[in-house]
Amino acid sequence: MVVEVPSESLLDQQRLLFKGLEKKVKLKPAIRNVVVSLQQPSLKDCQSDVDRLLDALKLETGCQLNLDFEALKKIPHVIREKDWTVTATIWKNQEVIDIQPGKGSACYGFAVDVGTTKLAGYLLDLNNGEIVASASTMNPQISFGEDVISRIRFAMEKSENLSELQRSVIDGVNKLIDETCKKANVSAENIYDFCFAGNTAMHHIFLGITPNYVALMPYPAALQSSIDVKARELSLGIAKGAYVHALPTIAGFVGGDAVADILATGIYTAEELSMLVDIGTNTEIILGNKHRLIACSCASGPAFEGAHIKHGMRASNGAIEQIWINPDNFEVGYKTVNGDKPRGLCGSAVVDVVAELLKSRLIDKSGRFNKNINTPRLRIGGKASEFVIVWRKDSSTETDITVTQEDIRVIQLAKAAIYTGAYILMKHLGVTFHDIEKMYLAGAFGTYVDPLNAKIIGMYPDIPLERVQFVGNTSGSGARMALLSIDVREEAHKIARSVEYIELGADPNFQNEFLKATYLPHKESDRFPSITKIVS
Amino acid sequence: MVVEVPSESLLDQQRLLFKGLEKKVKLKPAIRNVVVSLQQPSLKDCQSDVDRLLDALKLETGCQLNLDFEALKKIPHVIREKDWTVTATIWKNQEVIDIQPGKGSACYGFAVDVGTTKLAGYLLDLNNGEIVASASTMNPQISFGEDVISRIRFAMEKSENLSELQRSVIDGVNKLIDETCKKANVSAENIYDFCFAGNTAMHHIFLGITPNYVALMPYPAALQSSIDVKARELSLGIAKGAYVHALPTIAGFVGGDAVADILATGIYTAEELSMLVDIGTNTEIILGNKHRLIACSCASGPAFEGAHIKHGMRASNGAIEQIWINPDNFEVGYKTVNGDKPRGLCGSAVVDVVAELLKSRLIDKSGRFNKNINTPRLRIGGKASEFVIVWRKDSSTETDITVTQEDIRVIQLAKAAIYTGAYILMKHLGVTFHDIEKMYLAGAFGTYVDPLNAKIIGMYPDIPLERVQFVGNTSGSGARMALLSIDVREEAHKIARSVEYIELGADPNFQNEFLKATYLPHKESDRFPSITKIVS
Repeated sequence: MVVEVPSESLLDQQRLLFKGLEKKVKLKPAIRNVVVSLQQPSLKDCQSDVDRLLDALKLETGCQLNLDFEALKKIPHVIREKDWTVTATIWKNQEVIDIQPGKGSACYGFAVDVGTTKLAGYLLDLNNGEIVASASTMNPQISFGEDVISRIRFAMEKSENLSELQRSVIDGVNKLIDETCKKANVSAENIYDFCFAGNTAMHHIFLGITPNYVALMPYPAALQSSIDVKARELSLGIAKGAYVHALPTIAGFVGGDAVADILATGIYTAEELSMLVDIGTNTEIILGNKHRLIACSCASGPAFEGAHIKHGMRASNGAIEQIWINPDNFEVGYKTVNGDKPRGLCGSAVVDVVAELLKSRLIDKSGRFNKNINTPRLRIGGKASEFVIVWRKDSSTETDITVTQEDIRVIQLAKAAIYTGAYILMKHLGVTFHDIEKMYLAGAFGTYVDPLNAKIIGMYPDIPLERVQFVGNTSGSGARMALLSIDVREEAHKIARSVEYIELGADPNFQNEFLKATYLPHKESDRFPSITKIVS
Repeated sequence: MVVEVPSESLLDQQRLLFKGLEKKVKLKPAIRNVVVSLQQPSLKDCQSDVDRLLDALKLETGCQLNLDFEALKKIPHVIREKDWTVTATIWKNQEVIDIQPGKGSACYGFAVDVGTTKLAGYLLDLNNGEIVASASTMNPQISFGEDVISRIRFAMEKSENLSELQRSVIDGVNKLIDETCKKANVSAENIYDFCFAGNTAMHHIFLGITPNYVALMPYPAALQSSIDVKARELSLGIAKGAYVHALPTIAGFVGGDAVADILATGIYTAEELSMLVDIGTNTEIILGNKHRLIACSCASGPAFEGAHIKHGMRASNGAIEQIWINPDNFEVGYKTVNGDKPRGLCGSAVVDVVAELLKSRLIDKSGRFNKNINTPRLRIGGKASEFVIVWRKDSSTETDITVTQEDIRVIQLAKAAIYTGAYILMKHLGVTFHDIEKMYLAGAFGTYVDPLNAKIIGMYPDIPLERVQFVGNTSGSGARMALLSIDVREEAHKIARSVEYIELGADPNFQNEFLKATYLPHKESDRFPSITKIVS
């Protein structure tokens, strides 16, 4: 099963997100370089090369160190290359992972956000914690399925498929490593540490662990704890002895990306009650504060990435990203990525158009087009009913760009999934939307969406806009924070162990709540008092 | 540089030695199997597969275990295969190195003596410590050079040569694994532990560590400490997660084989003063008792393996292995391996013939043929002088089988090297041959040689025969002992750290002592009072 990738989502045309909110981290990397000068052996002092080095390092560091086997094999040649002076690269004061001749200080790390859709990589100088280069690309696995479930289905077909999926994402990351190393003029052999965050399926596949059971009741992760694996076991193109640190996961559908979000926003240390929503094909929601955090995953689907929408597309050049409808004459204003002639609608525009249709009464609370309104832009015809956003003459696709009744339905289901997750979490903690003091919107979509329009369609609870903060790609931020500090890794471990996972499917009210949430913004208007005022 | 291997030493014709003295070891292997039954996950208990298993194992064993990455990747499938019951194979109470579905008990280990000339492998059942199969073969590296120095020289030529040498010995060992597994009907995947002993160069090459500096002043080993390396890093055909334990080395020319000898003879725990001589291309000598042990290495060369001797051959079918000369008529009696028609002389016969020539006054103390003796068997002609052992008509080679003046010279140099090493060690400890209470002769040659004849030619100090014990392949015994008990590995570690290495080349008397030792049995007759009586 290989999915055709529409040209709209070609890798290089994609607007990809690098930055995210990031808590300041005190630099405490897993890696450090130590320079030692050795006594040359003599007939009187014929200690072995390895023991000689380890003894010198023990004197210098106070640590009894293990030796990576690849590093060990280099020792005899390397110690003799620059007059018995060498630089040892030490991981966590436990293991020598590399050795270089002479005095060296180069020490880099690489952090990756392994998203279902995109990969974002960051090359950091571990001596000062700075990002020296970053790069981003589509996750090449997309050719095996655009969402997590279709990739797991592919992995289930035969065991070789898992290797193929793994190879594909590793290749993608290796390209990011190459690209950033070239940009920053760094040798990939000086990358001595690596951290990544990803949702549970991406995490498993990256490590070559089967994701199959994640998709089967009761959806357990294969691996929750964080893990350190030699880069060479994964064929990553960095120092041979380096470790890859995989951030822990919370559950089958709440992964290391959510742990990274929690790290980057700091909600696990805050007193105030916070809700974090990381919108994607699967939307993770975390609710709580430093005393207790609960999490769930919502199958929101790929609609917010422009998929399953008639004129949907990713946020590349020519994508309409913002839309306004004049409620008096139903004329449409819009803005495209890069100001190009419009080609289609990206996720944020899809939210805008539904909200604007609702405000203009072109659709009602149930999402149906209002037949009583007379404008050439509204073409009524059952399921094929549609509203014209861009006339053919103004589009670059030689067709009218429209939003259809079916598109609106898809958006209703997607936003209902997210709202229902948020609502069930609130019920669990016994709180209402009034109690939520801070709302974090994470992820690329969460950065470009209009927060008021998202609330107008009822995507998230009726939290005052001044409490809403866009935090961008916090998954990447969390991976970078973990790269910079082993204390952060320790915190990530504790977070993954302490966050309570709520399985929405196990909640007896789920179905009923979900149906009510498909209304715009909700069937029960007291759930959205601030919006009810706007749209009525 | 590839050395032609004479047909006399073809692998399958070789008489190879398995057995050696072995101290009884209390079974305490590094490996054990633990069976656990897991709770099946549910929506209420959605712990990850890995954490579920580790928690169950912690409950069962009391240990917080690490997980081999290959074992980890098997977990999701394996735990579901036999109703959530699994067998975990645990290394040193530290790491799960494999996991199998259901209840399993199969647990094997493999020990190898990696000799310069031969490889001897032993498959052991770690549940009861018994040898279930053994096999032996020539070290295939022999095609790159017959002794250690020529192989190191080959390794020095270019870096790929080290890989080639390593691949060659690993291939040889993999064949031993296959052969023993077939014999005992054991799956190589159930071999969970592996120990080997070898001289320092063999040890280094086996691990892929350069042996180059072992051959260069001051001859340091690259690695002295024992080490555990994943079998998959060495491409050994046993369980993927298994560790290979390399016994420690003492110095560049006193390796893990000597450590194994010390373990097997137990001289490191004895009160009595012992000398251990492991005769080979390099002969290691260890002297001392539980209070102090010193060691040296002697470049005795391959003469005792039949090399560099005109009619020399290895101890395969048709090799003359014992010789007697009638001092009255100079007639020769001999015995061949397997009773076949004689083809040449193996090492023990070479020692016999020199001793018998000396006793019959056919040669003098300096090793020269006695021109005054008149027998058709003695053909005088300078360097080409020779003594006929087997007439052409009785040999299978269509030539007379003889021992030449040059052969005798080669043997004198070889035995002088050994004696000088033993003497310098004695001087170091301030003891004489009278003080030595126990003399161990180790190695294949040491098993077949006539101990009196060896002493007659002055190969080892004048120790009474009742104090001499043949101990056979103690290198293999020591490797097996280490396989059976991690306490033995601890002892090996202490031995390697405490044995003092004496560099013979650094002794100012070496040259002078060596020259005197080339005489038969020695220039100074008071060094061999018991022999002087016999030969004068």
